[in-house]
Amino acid sequence: MKKFLISKSRRLRSTPFTSRLEKYGIGAYTVYNHMLLPTFFSSPEEEYSHLKEHVQIWDVSVQREIEISGKDSSELVQLMTCRDLSNSKIGGCYYAPLVDSEGGLVNDPLIYRLEEKRWRVCIADSDVLLFAKGISAAKNLEVNIFEARIDTLAIQGPKSFELMKKVFGEKINNLKFFKFDFFDFNKKKYLISRSGFSKQGGFEIHIDNIKAGLELYDYFFETGKDFNLKPGTPNNIERIEGGLLSYGNDMDIGDNPLECGFDKYVNLESDILFLGKESLKRIKKKGVTKKLMGVKIEAKSINVTEGMPILDLDKKEIGELRSGAFSPKFEKIVGIAMIKKDFCRVSQKFQININNSLTHGEICNLPI
Amino acid sequence: MKKFLISKSRRLRSTPFTSRLEKYGIGAYTVYNHMLLPTFFSSPEEEYSHLKEHVQIWDVSVQREIEISGKDSSELVQLMTCRDLSNSKIGGCYYAPLVDSEGGLVNDPLIYRLEEKRWRVCIADSDVLLFAKGISAAKNLEVNIFEARIDTLAIQGPKSFELMKKVFGEKINNLKFFKFDFFDFNKKKYLISRSGFSKQGGFEIHIDNIKAGLELYDYFFETGKDFNLKPGTPNNIERIEGGLLSYGNDMDIGDNPLECGFDKYVNLESDILFLGKESLKRIKKKGVTKKLMGVKIEAKSINVTEGMPILDLDKKEIGELRSGAFSPKFEKIVGIAMIKKDFCRVSQKFQININNSLTHGEICNLPI
Repeated sequence: MKKFLISKSRRLRSTPFTSRLEKYGIGAYTVYNHMLLPTFFSSPEEEYSHLKEHVQIWDVSVQREIEISGKDSSELVQLMTCRDLSNSKIGGCYYAPLVDSEGGLVNDPLIYRLEEKRWRVCIADSDVLLFAKGISAAKNLEVNIFEARIDTLAIQGPKSFELMKKVFGEKINNLKFFKFDFFDFNKKKYLISRSGFSKQGGFEIHIDNIKAGLELYDYFFETGKDFNLKPGTPNNIERIEGGLLSYGNDMDIGDNPLECGFDKYVNLESDILFLGKESLKRIKKKGVTKKLMGVKIEAKSINVTEGMPILDLDKKEIGELRSGAFSPKFEKIVGIAMIKKDFCRVSQKFQININNSLTHGEICNLPI
Repeated sequence: MKKFLISKSRRLRSTPFTSRLEKYGIGAYTVYNHMLLPTFFSSPEEEYSHLKEHVQIWDVSVQREIEISGKDSSELVQLMTCRDLSNSKIGGCYYAPLVDSEGGLVNDPLIYRLEEKRWRVCIADSDVLLFAKGISAAKNLEVNIFEARIDTLAIQGPKSFELMKKVFGEKINNLKFFKFDFFDFNKKKYLISRSGFSKQGGFEIHIDNIKAGLELYDYFFETGKDFNLKPGTPNNIERIEGGLLSYGNDMDIGDNPLECGFDKYVNLESDILFLGKESLKRIKKKGVTKKLMGVKIEAKSINVTEGMPILDLDKKEIGELRSGAFSPKFEKIVGIAMIKKDFCRVSQKFQININNSLTHGEICNLPI
């Protein structure tokens, strides 16, 4: 595929780590929440293998954190999501689909409950800040909403546990999946969650002090040598295999959470109030018409730059491929596709046009 | 400056014209409203000169159009902007700062009044869709809000008038600045506005039929030969000289419209209702603390990839450079900077660190 340069400007924000990362040789950027996100250093394939065996440090500052605090903060956070947060605990991270009043997906953040009345919504690529501000202003809620000055480093991979123990001490081993706590390094306190956009295990370090964060970054590089630590990025191959969805790629505001397999986060029976409740009730009653599924395609390479039609054997459109990459594990393309309900069957055969050649594939479950 | 590639994916949407444009040799992309926007073909300098003398065709489909219709549509549109739209007319385009309840700039769209109760908000780079949906859902307004399937071609440059006459007929000459109307080509109707992100004059053609739009694009290329038409993009040099502000570069949600010189669109005396009214009244009464100004810097090249501190002669910070480019006209850098109020004087001298070298500059008015 033809390659294109990116034009930088203030509008595509750098992170505190950008200049360091560029020294390590960034392969390419994408833009996410108006900010630069590296997509690979050496190659996605090399980094895929390395991530599954060792440990990587990722600059995921693009996961901007919308802080919502104040008397009505819990009401506002709940209004945005179909997940029942009424029993959420301080110290918990909640994967929570945000929906508009029609039930369309606005974002799929991880929501952190910092205090009884203080939340952080750690967002995928859409301006949740404006959604929250719109609701709050219209309802005259007593809240404070802003994009926090938090930049996040993810430590991901099987060796992340040993490495993190070395940096932050034994206590880090007590941190359970999707929980967060505070840990010390060099006399500074860091909010660390056991989370991250890979299935290889790991942590996310939420940094509120840039100078200290840069020192921490350099320390990781030094100490990480024993663990074969390398700079990395969220890896498209690994996350597709693992069924980790990417907002804007796999689903968007034209899809609802029931179509995306988020059923257990759509809590319609509870008495919580959220904007899309009536719509989602209607949709659930009627049944969805399409669903996100995994796919495997008999090809060695693909560039998914827009939705690609998935055809049945009569060339009738039955869905749309939204992400795809060559998987070294399966030795074929793996992908995520929105498929019409009647065709959401494991092993359902299909065809897809890749570089003007009809190629065979079949539907599978997620994770692949 | 080091060059970096862009990683394409479905999340960075293509436009209907992307594949055609790539054949003409795109130099680089930026991302705007989650969509690909070319930043130049040959070079920004060459295209700057060409734009001022001839005519260019730009794919500005990234100017996504949020359509708001229904009984309460005028109320919703007014709630978002500090510009009084109560006397707005069908057929008019209104440059209108959108503000949050603190008076922070959410976007600076051109708002089209299509019908009494049907508006199009033609947006800069932020998710106005979510802002509008948040307000509307919270207030239970009777509106229909969606991103319209409109892709826009801009015809810009002094020869645009003759070229447009040749394509759409004499009638186009009657279209006044910041008005729109409907014009026929090849049995299809197009909404065309006399507008565009340059000071060289021109039009924007709002296309709702992709197939017809592609035919129109090709026809322009064929017919445009007589006018030395070339593919172009919004030109950073030309727009800075002309004082055309770029949301996300020159100003963002941390700035208010009074700081950006939008005073005449901040209608606080009228009895309209908008979210930021009380805040802007307070700010106006107190007076702003900073203002966007033009700058000229004695250097030949610059890459503004983040806000760059502007220092007085004692090296005290007095502002931040937000955009900049070498101007062939002034034979120096021209830029747009947010300057502390006390230093907003024409001819105020300053220093700025460019590539580790302190360089002299002075403040000027916008347009430069």
